[in-house]
Amino acid sequence: AGTAAGSPLLLRHYAVESLPHQKSHPPPTALKSVGSFAAGAVAPHPGLRPAVESKEVAESKEAAGNKLVESYMQHAAYDTEYLESLKPTHLTPEKMHQRIGLGVVRIARWSFDRATGYGPKMTEAKWLQRMIFLETVAGVPGMVGGMLRHLKSLRSMQRDNGWIHTLLEEAENERMHLLTFFQIRQPGPLFRAAVIAAQGLFFNAFFIGYLLSPKTCHAFVGFLEEEAVKTYTHALADIDAGLLWKDKAAPPIAIQYWGLNKDATMRDVILAVRADEACHAHVNHTLSKLKPSEVNPFVTGASQLP
Amino acid sequence: AGTAAGSPLLLRHYAVESLPHQKSHPPPTALKSVGSFAAGAVAPHPGLRPAVESKEVAESKEAAGNKLVESYMQHAAYDTEYLESLKPTHLTPEKMHQRIGLGVVRIARWSFDRATGYGPKMTEAKWLQRMIFLETVAGVPGMVGGMLRHLKSLRSMQRDNGWIHTLLEEAENERMHLLTFFQIRQPGPLFRAAVIAAQGLFFNAFFIGYLLSPKTCHAFVGFLEEEAVKTYTHALADIDAGLLWKDKAAPPIAIQYWGLNKDATMRDVILAVRADEACHAHVNHTLSKLKPSEVNPFVTGASQLP
Ligand SMILES: [Fe+2]
Ligand SMILES: [Fe+2]
Ligand SMILES: [Fe+2]
Ligand SMILES: [Fe+2]
Repeated sequence: AGTAAGSPLLLRHYAVESLPHQKSHPPPTALKSVGSFAAGAVAPHPGLRPAVESKEVAESKEAAGNKLVESYMQHAAYDTEYLESLKPTHLTPEKMHQRIGLGVVRIARWSFDRATGYGPKMTEAKWLQRMIFLETVAGVPGMVGGMLRHLKSLRSMQRDNGWIHTLLEEAENERMHLLTFFQIRQPGPLFRAAVIAAQGLFFNAFFIGYLLSPKTCHAFVGFLEEEAVKTYTHALADIDAGLLWKDKAAPPIAIQYWGLNKDATMRDVILAVRADEACHAHVNHTLSKLKPSEVNPFVTGASQLP
Repeated sequence: AGTAAGSPLLLRHYAVESLPHQKSHPPPTALKSVGSFAAGAVAPHPGLRPAVESKEVAESKEAAGNKLVESYMQHAAYDTEYLESLKPTHLTPEKMHQRIGLGVVRIARWSFDRATGYGPKMTEAKWLQRMIFLETVAGVPGMVGGMLRHLKSLRSMQRDNGWIHTLLEEAENERMHLLTFFQIRQPGPLFRAAVIAAQGLFFNAFFIGYLLSPKTCHAFVGFLEEEAVKTYTHALADIDAGLLWKDKAAPPIAIQYWGLNKDATMRDVILAVRADEACHAHVNHTLSKLKPSEVNPFVTGASQLP
């Protein structure tokens, strides 16, 4: 073994006029899992494929000129019956770290609702402002947790046991929520300043919190997502009462990401977003009960608490 | 639409004695893309599947009791001919940011080689120390870049255009290199202290550098990975000369991650690691030529410079 690299035959066979830094670089033939690709190239980065691949998605991609690629973490296409049947849930806190997490969420929600005037009567503009603002914050915890566990795995040279990807996926999912709502409303400069300030504060707070107590942070996110499910359930009620987005079409990015039908509406989008939030609540409550060194039960596709 | 949630029939049909926070939570039926799963559960987190799925991988997983799951970003199984034919490459720097990146790499390599006594005569222990130490550092840039682009996308509410996943995937890939080498040698306390210090320094330096100039940082990583390809080519030569790891078996985690044969050796592992580093060099040189707002050309599986 190990002589093929020196074979002049092989080198000649693949000789190409390629880019400067590739000139001494015999190209690959094929990646087993990807198929053949152009000569003169190094192996393309694998794993980059759109989140959901279905007939509907293929159609919506084509309709959008195949230019909507943004998310590469696989996302399930939900069953309609499941989406409609979902309801707000509440975990009764038992341990101290859960009580702290719930307490922080209650204070945060109470202050935020007062400051922004959340209530039974919400205009479309108010709904979108709320959703956009909260989703710019919601994408932070998963990224912070994933990054800190990655760095810990590197410096301790220990296995992560499957947490990182679940956390990064949550972060990506929240970012897709944000980009979806942004398609419908683009906020002004004052709002943008508030978003930047909130990220600066929350990123640092969550970073320090996660270093001190990952369990408390996951409990916090679990209870926060319970609130998100409540809020999106309220939005759905408003949609069904005809107060919000009467038959408004879903943006193409949402159709592609969740694998919705081509004629999907914002109601379908909110259903999918709510299901995502319910998933995050469940996942984070589960993780908050584990030691950081335990195996992430979701890595094997398990959907029950361990 | 929207009445299924209120149907007592549906609720009864799925009634389960479930966990406290699930008591008002009608379970899903099925995820279109995942298949049916246990009643009483929220949708399992999708997208968690082992990196490479092949017959060999299934065998090696079974041999390891299916407990080796660690990486969930898809990784290609390389073609043997490609692996053997790969050679060190060098991109001639043209722009100022590339010259700076190359300069930093040269200083870093020169100092590190002197400090650790790298040279033509390397013992097995020296090889492993070098590989483990460098891989604990190599996993940092992708995570920092991915995180900063994620946060930027959130606070600017703009599309990322597909960079995040490529960067996170690089970070995960380097972490898998580390965990692989760690199977063969577990370093002592002094070494561990050096790793922690190096991460503290390098994480902060790269974080600030990436905020100042992502292009320079990607050029730096590109040239760093060129050095990694050189070093692993040197290691391969030592293996082929019988100086290193004579027919030493590959650790199970490596067999699973790269989809190697059950009887793969460390030579096969180093071939795969070298191909990964060549991929990172190519990807980072490419990204260093783009504006951060441009589309990542690797998102569509492209393997050529744009
Ligand atoms: Fe969200
Ligand atoms: Fe959320
Ligand atoms: Fe590496
Ligand atoms: Fe590398």
